[in-house]
Amino acid sequence: MQVLSVLKRVPEDVKERMVNQYPSVDFRYCYGMEEGEDYLPEAEILITYGEDLNEEKIEKAKNLKWIMIMSAGMDRMPFSIIEEKDILVTNVRGIHAKPMAEYAIGMFLQVAKRAKKLQQQENASYWNRKLDFQELGGHTMVLLGTGAIASETARLAKAFDMKTIGVSRSGKGKDNFDEVYRIEKLNAALSEGDYVAAVLPSTEETRGLLQKEHFQAMPEHAVFLNMGRGDLVPEKTVSSAIEKGDIAHAVLDVMEEEPLPEDHPFWREENITVTPHISGITSGYLPRAFDIFDRNMKAYMNSDSMENVIDPERGY
Amino acid sequence: MQVLSVLKRVPEDVKERMVNQYPSVDFRYCYGMEEGEDYLPEAEILITYGEDLNEEKIEKAKNLKWIMIMSAGMDRMPFSIIEEKDILVTNVRGIHAKPMAEYAIGMFLQVAKRAKKLQQQENASYWNRKLDFQELGGHTMVLLGTGAIASETARLAKAFDMKTIGVSRSGKGKDNFDEVYRIEKLNAALSEGDYVAAVLPSTEETRGLLQKEHFQAMPEHAVFLNMGRGDLVPEKTVSSAIEKGDIAHAVLDVMEEEPLPEDHPFWREENITVTPHISGITSGYLPRAFDIFDRNMKAYMNSDSMENVIDPERGY
Repeated sequence: MQVLSVLKRVPEDVKERMVNQYPSVDFRYCYGMEEGEDYLPEAEILITYGEDLNEEKIEKAKNLKWIMIMSAGMDRMPFSIIEEKDILVTNVRGIHAKPMAEYAIGMFLQVAKRAKKLQQQENASYWNRKLDFQELGGHTMVLLGTGAIASETARLAKAFDMKTIGVSRSGKGKDNFDEVYRIEKLNAALSEGDYVAAVLPSTEETRGLLQKEHFQAMPEHAVFLNMGRGDLVPEKTVSSAIEKGDIAHAVLDVMEEEPLPEDHPFWREENITVTPHISGITSGYLPRAFDIFDRNMKAYMNSDSMENVIDPERGY
Repeated sequence: MQVLSVLKRVPEDVKERMVNQYPSVDFRYCYGMEEGEDYLPEAEILITYGEDLNEEKIEKAKNLKWIMIMSAGMDRMPFSIIEEKDILVTNVRGIHAKPMAEYAIGMFLQVAKRAKKLQQQENASYWNRKLDFQELGGHTMVLLGTGAIASETARLAKAFDMKTIGVSRSGKGKDNFDEVYRIEKLNAALSEGDYVAAVLPSTEETRGLLQKEHFQAMPEHAVFLNMGRGDLVPEKTVSSAIEKGDIAHAVLDVMEEEPLPEDHPFWREENITVTPHISGITSGYLPRAFDIFDRNMKAYMNSDSMENVIDPERGY
């Protein structure tokens, strides 16, 4: 049985762990799809981040039975041909929750504790204590989304003595949320948000969901953070909300176009913090992803039921 | 009864709250001791941060019965004359815990999530995702001190799924700490510290406590944070530990000399982050401090027992 991995930079100890665990399996680790493409025809199992697949590649992979996606977003997967060829797809849904929740709390703390200003002062060897330092405690975090990532972020927010409000389609109550509003009451939720975090996937319903009125509904001191997908809100709407003072600060980890072009105004706006889509990345990522692969591999070999199986028709 | 406040920048609503609460009391709000000094002779109660007192001022304050210190550090208080004149001293011990714990977690997250590098990339409009992002979760935080601030920091660390080890004189177990080591086992504790936070006051025992050997005991990837007092560790020891790679990063909120001189090398060292003694400052500080004053004022007027009474002989 041949397993083809087209992930770049898999740690050596993780590679060895797999090889030792499954001596009868032929593991081929390639540095990206460019290097791995020639081996597609023989592969029974493909390990990939998923953004390098298209119909042509799937056609080429004549023996493919299972695609293990080492990410959670699957916007670019060619699901119709995958369904047609009856290929099994699993992903690593859930492993982003902890690093992304840490990212959100960390970035909100940076804004609250004026990290940007402090860094500028440090660069200028300037000792100045008269800045407007805020706390998270006692304030309200509004989360757009109530899934695993939003829920873990809300759990940490509760530890900081914050009030947590979720917004979801159903408005159904969930652990770690003091309240959950239905999407129809989005403006009411946003009006309570000292800190607003968007953790929504890209779907027909979420694309362009946030408009001018929503930023106007937030308090003027609100900090808006997007770590879901960039197409949730038109970039001009964010720029304008900052320029007009509808909100105080935006932290953006995801963009309409990635990488963000070098001449994009976001880079230079004092009250917009740009990070290069890194909220889910940590050195613990691949080891954890391979833990899931490992469990699924055992299940696959024993024809047991597997974790995080994707329905190609729904796309999640 | 005259109450003299020599605090700078008391919010108007807080001033009014006191005036309305105690109509029979004469509140005099001055902008610093320079402005307030002339009123010392009439004051029965003095509200101050405490760093502006000396024997001369206490002599001048002939009617002084109670000093309300709106801070926790009292290194510079002229306690012998205060004791001689039998003046009551109270402080606001405890209110620093929440903002300081938020500061510590925020700064550790900044280092773990490579905030300095990301900021440099943002300044250069450079989209680069290949940085070594770490997590707090699964790592160990060692806290020097197990008092209110350390304990609140440990509580948050536990929420992040960290292991927490405290170090104290007694080694007595405490809430929020997985383990507490006696100070004699300091090196053993430090060797486990991925993140090490010092929250110690300045006393005879703590001055110069941390030496070269202690930084050598920490892992090379350790992040050391000092938000207690600057004299815990000689500055040269920190510089040298960073230069030699004994530890990866130092975050310093307190210095041997404050403000840190403009030509000090700390400002320019990439792996030392300097903040200007702000870990305890937030916009919520004075309102909370006046809450304690308010409760103590009621007790004072009714001759009830008061909160946070300081023993001038011990100095805490």
